[in-house]
Amino acid sequence: MRRMLKSRSVKGGLPPGALVHVGERKVDETKIKLMAYDETRIVEREPGTVEECFLPKDHGGVTWINLDGLHDTEMVGRLGARSGLHPLVVEDILNTDQRPKLDDHGEYIFVVLKSLYHADEDSGEPEIEQISLVIGPDYVLSFQEREGDEFEPIRDRIRGNVSRVRKGGADYLAYALIDLVVDQYFVVLERLGDRIEALEEELVAAPTTQTLHDLHHLKREMAFLRKSVWPLREAISKLERSESPLIHEATGVYLRDVYDHTIQIIDAVETFRDMLSGMLDIYLSSVSNRMNEVMKLLTIIATVFIPLTFVAGLYGMNFKYMPELQWPWGYPMAWAIMIAIALLMVAYFRRKKWL
Amino acid sequence: MRRMLKSRSVKGGLPPGALVHVGERKVDETKIKLMAYDETRIVEREPGTVEECFLPKDHGGVTWINLDGLHDTEMVGRLGARSGLHPLVVEDILNTDQRPKLDDHGEYIFVVLKSLYHADEDSGEPEIEQISLVIGPDYVLSFQEREGDEFEPIRDRIRGNVSRVRKGGADYLAYALIDLVVDQYFVVLERLGDRIEALEEELVAAPTTQTLHDLHHLKREMAFLRKSVWPLREAISKLERSESPLIHEATGVYLRDVYDHTIQIIDAVETFRDMLSGMLDIYLSSVSNRMNEVMKLLTIIATVFIPLTFVAGLYGMNFKYMPELQWPWGYPMAWAIMIAIALLMVAYFRRKKWL
Amino acid sequence: MRRMLKSRSVKGGLPPGALVHVGERKVDETKIKLMAYDETRIVEREPGTVEECFLPKDHGGVTWINLDGLHDTEMVGRLGARSGLHPLVVEDILNTDQRPKLDDHGEYIFVVLKSLYHADEDSGEPEIEQISLVIGPDYVLSFQEREGDEFEPIRDRIRGNVSRVRKGGADYLAYALIDLVVDQYFVVLERLGDRIEALEEELVAAPTTQTLHDLHHLKREMAFLRKSVWPLREAISKLERSESPLIHEATGVYLRDVYDHTIQIIDAVETFRDMLSGMLDIYLSSVSNRMNEVMKLLTIIATVFIPLTFVAGLYGMNFKYMPELQWPWGYPMAWAIMIAIALLMVAYFRRKKWL
Amino acid sequence: MRRMLKSRSVKGGLPPGALVHVGERKVDETKIKLMAYDETRIVEREPGTVEECFLPKDHGGVTWINLDGLHDTEMVGRLGARSGLHPLVVEDILNTDQRPKLDDHGEYIFVVLKSLYHADEDSGEPEIEQISLVIGPDYVLSFQEREGDEFEPIRDRIRGNVSRVRKGGADYLAYALIDLVVDQYFVVLERLGDRIEALEEELVAAPTTQTLHDLHHLKREMAFLRKSVWPLREAISKLERSESPLIHEATGVYLRDVYDHTIQIIDAVETFRDMLSGMLDIYLSSVSNRMNEVMKLLTIIATVFIPLTFVAGLYGMNFKYMPELQWPWGYPMAWAIMIAIALLMVAYFRRKKWL
Amino acid sequence: MRRMLKSRSVKGGLPPGALVHVGERKVDETKIKLMAYDETRIVEREPGTVEECFLPKDHGGVTWINLDGLHDTEMVGRLGARSGLHPLVVEDILNTDQRPKLDDHGEYIFVVLKSLYHADEDSGEPEIEQISLVIGPDYVLSFQEREGDEFEPIRDRIRGNVSRVRKGGADYLAYALIDLVVDQYFVVLERLGDRIEALEEELVAAPTTQTLHDLHHLKREMAFLRKSVWPLREAISKLERSESPLIHEATGVYLRDVYDHTIQIIDAVETFRDMLSGMLDIYLSSVSNRMNEVMKLLTIIATVFIPLTFVAGLYGMNFKYMPELQWPWGYPMAWAIMIAIALLMVAYFRRKKWL
Repeated sequence: MRRMLKSRSVKGGLPPGALVHVGERKVDETKIKLMAYDETRIVEREPGTVEECFLPKDHGGVTWINLDGLHDTEMVGRLGARSGLHPLVVEDILNTDQRPKLDDHGEYIFVVLKSLYHADEDSGEPEIEQISLVIGPDYVLSFQEREGDEFEPIRDRIRGNVSRVRKGGADYLAYALIDLVVDQYFVVLERLGDRIEALEEELVAAPTTQTLHDLHHLKREMAFLRKSVWPLREAISKLERSESPLIHEATGVYLRDVYDHTIQIIDAVETFRDMLSGMLDIYLSSVSNRMNEVMKLLTIIATVFIPLTFVAGLYGMNFKYMPELQWPWGYPMAWAIMIAIALLMVAYFRRKKWL
Repeated sequence: MRRMLKSRSVKGGLPPGALVHVGERKVDETKIKLMAYDETRIVEREPGTVEECFLPKDHGGVTWINLDGLHDTEMVGRLGARSGLHPLVVEDILNTDQRPKLDDHGEYIFVVLKSLYHADEDSGEPEIEQISLVIGPDYVLSFQEREGDEFEPIRDRIRGNVSRVRKGGADYLAYALIDLVVDQYFVVLERLGDRIEALEEELVAAPTTQTLHDLHHLKREMAFLRKSVWPLREAISKLERSESPLIHEATGVYLRDVYDHTIQIIDAVETFRDMLSGMLDIYLSSVSNRMNEVMKLLTIIATVFIPLTFVAGLYGMNFKYMPELQWPWGYPMAWAIMIAIALLMVAYFRRKKWL
Repeated sequence: MRRMLKSRSVKGGLPPGALVHVGERKVDETKIKLMAYDETRIVEREPGTVEECFLPKDHGGVTWINLDGLHDTEMVGRLGARSGLHPLVVEDILNTDQRPKLDDHGEYIFVVLKSLYHADEDSGEPEIEQISLVIGPDYVLSFQEREGDEFEPIRDRIRGNVSRVRKGGADYLAYALIDLVVDQYFVVLERLGDRIEALEEELVAAPTTQTLHDLHHLKREMAFLRKSVWPLREAISKLERSESPLIHEATGVYLRDVYDHTIQIIDAVETFRDMLSGMLDIYLSSVSNRMNEVMKLLTIIATVFIPLTFVAGLYGMNFKYMPELQWPWGYPMAWAIMIAIALLMVAYFRRKKWL
Repeated sequence: MRRMLKSRSVKGGLPPGALVHVGERKVDETKIKLMAYDETRIVEREPGTVEECFLPKDHGGVTWINLDGLHDTEMVGRLGARSGLHPLVVEDILNTDQRPKLDDHGEYIFVVLKSLYHADEDSGEPEIEQISLVIGPDYVLSFQEREGDEFEPIRDRIRGNVSRVRKGGADYLAYALIDLVVDQYFVVLERLGDRIEALEEELVAAPTTQTLHDLHHLKREMAFLRKSVWPLREAISKLERSESPLIHEATGVYLRDVYDHTIQIIDAVETFRDMLSGMLDIYLSSVSNRMNEVMKLLTIIATVFIPLTFVAGLYGMNFKYMPELQWPWGYPMAWAIMIAIALLMVAYFRRKKWL
Repeated sequence: MRRMLKSRSVKGGLPPGALVHVGERKVDETKIKLMAYDETRIVEREPGTVEECFLPKDHGGVTWINLDGLHDTEMVGRLGARSGLHPLVVEDILNTDQRPKLDDHGEYIFVVLKSLYHADEDSGEPEIEQISLVIGPDYVLSFQEREGDEFEPIRDRIRGNVSRVRKGGADYLAYALIDLVVDQYFVVLERLGDRIEALEEELVAAPTTQTLHDLHHLKREMAFLRKSVWPLREAISKLERSESPLIHEATGVYLRDVYDHTIQIIDAVETFRDMLSGMLDIYLSSVSNRMNEVMKLLTIIATVFIPLTFVAGLYGMNFKYMPELQWPWGYPMAWAIMIAIALLMVAYFRRKKWL
């Protein structure tokens, strides 16, 4: 959360469209991967310069240019310029603290997504990466912050001859990429679910202050997740209902499917939030329950022994004329009185169901 | 809740439309039941293969194909293909963690419902089953997870000569199925209501920590119920307001009736939620009330006896020159002082209404 | 609340339109009252059978058929059939756990209302009765659960020559009936207001656990009231904005007036709810305040006497060589020390404003 | 709040349009003030009867009839009838528990406002008065509950030659009246703000139970204020967006200005509500903080002295063979032990930051 | 907050459009800065009078008149009059307690913004300044409360030859100004974020009552911020979707960009609010946790020593016939009993996990 605001302030006063990379540098070198295909042919390259990306116009089919690493603002700027992107779009691509959104610029559609992933197998906390897509009539540009094999499944499907991607246009390719990103959310949610479940068991077994902090931590993560899913839903909904000629009608069904997935994700996030709230309540009332137990014990011990101590004190007085002290049965009598008091007290607590 | 997310992640990266059964296998064998009828004739079969389901085109009337058990993805896929379903629809049918929804695909309408039922008479917690319906111009496909006699009442009504189902089209049959599913909710709600009532009595009589856990458990179940009723309402509302030619105008009145039922269910769920919240408040304040009672007792005992013990301690001192100790009436005087203090204290508590 | 769900479940599986009376039987015998009038003539009858209700077609004017008692499903069914009501409408009339609603069936408008009344003068808790209205072009059917003189004022106004009802159509009569039902809410609200006020005084004077239970009871009643007023508002709003030819434009002003009343009722209910919430807060903080008072007393007594008792114990020790014990002024010195400690303590508490 | 419901119930069963004054009688005699003006002429009168109010038709300009005091229902009724008002409008004028609202009756617009004022300079609590306006093509009727000089500033502006009111139509006059009423809210809010500020200082300095009651009192007043401002906003918004020919386009800018003011008022009310909620939280946590302080003191005193008293008690035992009692250094040793225990305890509390 | 209401009340009763400066006087003298430019030429002046601001009509290009200091109502009035502004607009400019808003007056668009800034580097609390913009076809009027170099970056960009501002129209200039103001919010948010972070660390380390007050203070500031951001978002959204010919289509993309920024700001504010709420919860439960710790210690000490003290008191009794006192091993036996009791108690607490 804080990152977003930190970096943003360095841009204050700069004219709009200024190319500044806002975010962490996650790869050493910016890398371009190009894929061009139609139903029959397929071309795959890793061009070193932006200029090599552009195939002769009569190529046909769909061209997919993927760029990993955004710190090379000059390269991104040039790619944007050659593709005819509005300077503000290029600025948004470089600025990795965007909310997910969709802007229809007529000749192309600009989509910003947030991809969640786990840095390694064991890490509970998900990392976030901004992915920008530009959907043109016959091309898709995708911009990633880090170099990853995130889109490899799609590349594999393209390489496979029979897949639907090969037959679809640029919009279908974009759908496939978005679908992949959205599917990642389920993995992340599942792991969060595991953590919540573990916490719940801990809560029932032996809640500590740490449990409370973990609860709040998870709550905050959930709030963060929510903040990136809701606008995602909105963006995909916009795309689905879009009347842009760039989105073919046949792709609509697929987009509706992704849309359904985002709603499922939101549902899950809301459920997790509710669960966490409920767990907080249980934590608090279990703490207050233990407090009660402590109080009860104190009360029982104190109210049983205070009268006894008083009796003991009584016969510890040094008055010259205290007849009881001289009685032969004085001492047993004192014991009798004290035992009677104690029994009465215990009986009272029994009746009150405190014991 | 968690189930949904668990299973979903295994699909990550697969192309859309991939036929994977997401969910538990609830029956041994996938079973098809076919019913074809018009006002005069009626045919009932249990075909072993998908191919046997399709009657000659000139049959007329309504064909209802019901499939129990979704693990045989190949069979579902073939049925879908022969009926001309979109691959994503088939995927959705197999994926049993859908939200209730309605998709109008032009030639057919696809509806996903969640059916609630009690596994046996005594179980308090309802089970959930996904039921998918495909409503075509002259056929209805229904997909269930388990083999049950859930739809038997409808079959009976069809077998009976005079029923409205026989006269209605495929849309009326679909309505009848949905109505049956929605009616089940009332049964489930009623049982939840019984559990809430029992809990309420327990709460007034003798609340324990278990009561609190039960409360939270019921709250979570209610949240879960709510999550499946709201989209159900939405789906049925979509169906009612649908302008699809598949839904005849005359069926609209019936759909509005089911819609009213879903609103009643939502009302009941919300009322139960409110009741549970109120019960939580009562639980907490009854706990804090008992705490107060404990504290009061401690205070009364302690504040009465502490001064008395002090007096006793006073005359237990061993000073050589303590005139009171020598007085003949010293001991009775000490008693008098102590009794006076005790009476004053008790009077004070009386006035404060603590006793 | 619970009633609604109980009875409903017996209907599960029955075909729609099945005539089952859902609700309590509140009268011995179903009774029909008929009134037919136009500006010049007026006919009043109590027909024994449904058939007698139907006057010759050329009668003109408005016919109002009122039916008290719904358990005679057969009679209601026949009346419905003869009036051309949809079977589902008849089912809804018999099912007394409907939400207030309005359905426009083209030839007639079906309205369900909830009437609140006090069974007797002293009862605080309002009873609820379902009233169904069918508004036709020249007739109004009204169905009540119990036989009451609830609609007598309207009958009196009709009998009076000059009233507006006589000049108005069926829609105006329906308006007059709805207005009467809505006006009842004000009476009920007023009585609830009295109870809230009484509770508030109790709360300030001497809150007990009973006060808390009363508060929650009132809160639940308010929630229940709210559940019947909101859909009422919706139904009347639908009626007002209706473009049905059954509702004449001139009646629109009157319906807007009733609508304003429902909004006022909602306002009052919401205000009461807020008041009850505020009272709950006051209750809780007054309980916690008293707890504090108790704690303070305990602390003051204990912290004043514990050091004194220690001093007394000190000089109660039996060491052979304790010089103070031999001092002639030892005892007065001990007193001086103890009085000094007590005074210091009291001064401290004074400064802390605890005394 | 309660007033509204009380009086309303007396009307139950009366036909709509019945002229009953609902509210308090705030003036002795109903008084009419008439003002007629155009850009060149101005007429001012105080007619004794309704009939004198109506100038010859060819008068031109704007006629403003103001009526103070609503208990003379007969007079209001006659004025309404002569102005062609709908009976329900006259009923609404007499019924002073209306919500602010706007009804467009085609030939005239009916507006109900709530005016807030302070009865005298020192009173903190605002009084409420209902003001009804009827805006016709060339006349404005205004109805007030009490006789006040509330509208004098407008009269002065009209009397002044150059003011915009003189040039404007009836709608501009109505705007001016509404603007005046809305401006009053700022005065009332300011005084409430003063009270909140005073309470806040009290809260920080020395919160008592009275502070809590004041807080709840202010909260309720704020809720009440809110209930009259929200519908006011709605009514003015309706007026601004009205397509009635009675509202000239040029007046629209002015109405938008009043609308902006109502939004500012709502903003302020919401801010005050938030502040009061925050203050309630601070009150509660300051109470619980003081509780903690009390508990801490008790704990420290008790835990320091209880072991000491034990040691003292120990050497108060009368065993025949207790070697320590015979030691010459026994007594100083006991002191040493006790001082050591006390120091250890204090050190512990220091480390725990309780001291 | 309070300021706004204070000053506003002095205007009560004044006719609309009366020129009264509502707000603090922040500069000594009102100062005008004029800039006129097109793609080739640029003129910069600081005219002493309003009249000097108006260049000959055939000048072409964009004229930007900036006015610092609003107390010279006469000068603002004259500038407004010469520019053809509606009197209410001039009133709004002078009234510095406006909400951000946008009014389209046809010939010009009037925008009110709230600019946030830090008075000096160290101040945590942001100051607020109202900035009004009037966007005409070829001019922009900007009104500031204080003289600052806030708009210098824009002036520099204009002075620079190649910038987009020089090529754009008045709407682009207005956009640039708004963008600058919105960018300021990020700086302010960042600093608030720093304060929240610092507070969070304090909360974990050592929460005091001051922490609570700081929390509430920040919460209130956040509420205040929220109150100015939400209407800002609305105003900019209106501007973006405006169909006014004053806003060229090309500027729309830029306005959408500012709009996205306001949404990001709202997101951040909401996140901060959530964080503060969470921190409040943590504060409260950490306070109650410490309370528990205190209680536990008291209970442990008291319950261990109370029985011991009783035993000591027992053998301090002065009965003549107490056999134990005569036993040679009586004293060690007493010790043994006491040690046994203490060990039992400690073991019990160990098992209960209190130690």
